[in-house]
Amino acid sequence: MEPFRTLAQVTAFSDEKMRKNSVFETERMFCDVYCFEPGQKQAVHTHTGSDKMYFVLEGTGTFTIGDVEKDLHKDEFAIAISGVNHGVENRSAVRLTVLVYMAPKPTH
Amino acid sequence: MEPFRTLAQVTAFSDEKMRKNSVFETERMFCDVYCFEPGQKQAVHTHTGSDKMYFVLEGTGTFTIGDVEKDLHKDEFAIAISGVNHGVENRSAVRLTVLVYMAPKPTH
Repeated sequence: MEPFRTLAQVTAFSDEKMRKNSVFETERMFCDVYCFEPGQKQAVHTHTGSDKMYFVLEGTGTFTIGDVEKDLHKDEFAIAISGVNHGVENRSAVRLTVLVYMAPKPTH
Repeated sequence: MEPFRTLAQVTAFSDEKMRKNSVFETERMFCDVYCFEPGQKQAVHTHTGSDKMYFVLEGTGTFTIGDVEKDLHKDEFAIAISGVNHGVENRSAVRLTVLVYMAPKPTH
């Protein structure tokens, strides 16, 4: 695996739905860049046995973690540990880019 | 665990040596923000069974991954998978801030 990447290489949006762009993937983890046009979202869901972390790179996202909904801006983090509901929605008028890290890789 | 953090909350430098600031830590992973004053470094080392990812938030770092040494700037990534040498040095004249993600947590 090539050990070096740039954010520009992996940033891509889709008009159809939020787009997941892979940065790195190993047997143990993955790192993606999620790109949301205005109005796009990742529905709230849950993984068991894996932790997912978010870091906002650009824009503002509405993050659901458990029962809490919170707007996060550039340079803000969220984490959903195993079993905790999580989702992201771009309710803003501009693009949203989020770094996503998850380990171990979920089986669903 | 509080599921929300900001980069500002966890960014801190030390005159003595590079500083590791914890963002999140679970049974399965940790996320840190490493802060390097000019001249500070994390010596090259290796973990077995864990993957470590870097993402440069500010400044320029000289990253060693395996046998390759490369300068990385803001918005650039590197990964050292299990068993691969890795280290970071700030040879620049300004501060370096790096997001670090590792899973699973190493035993040493």
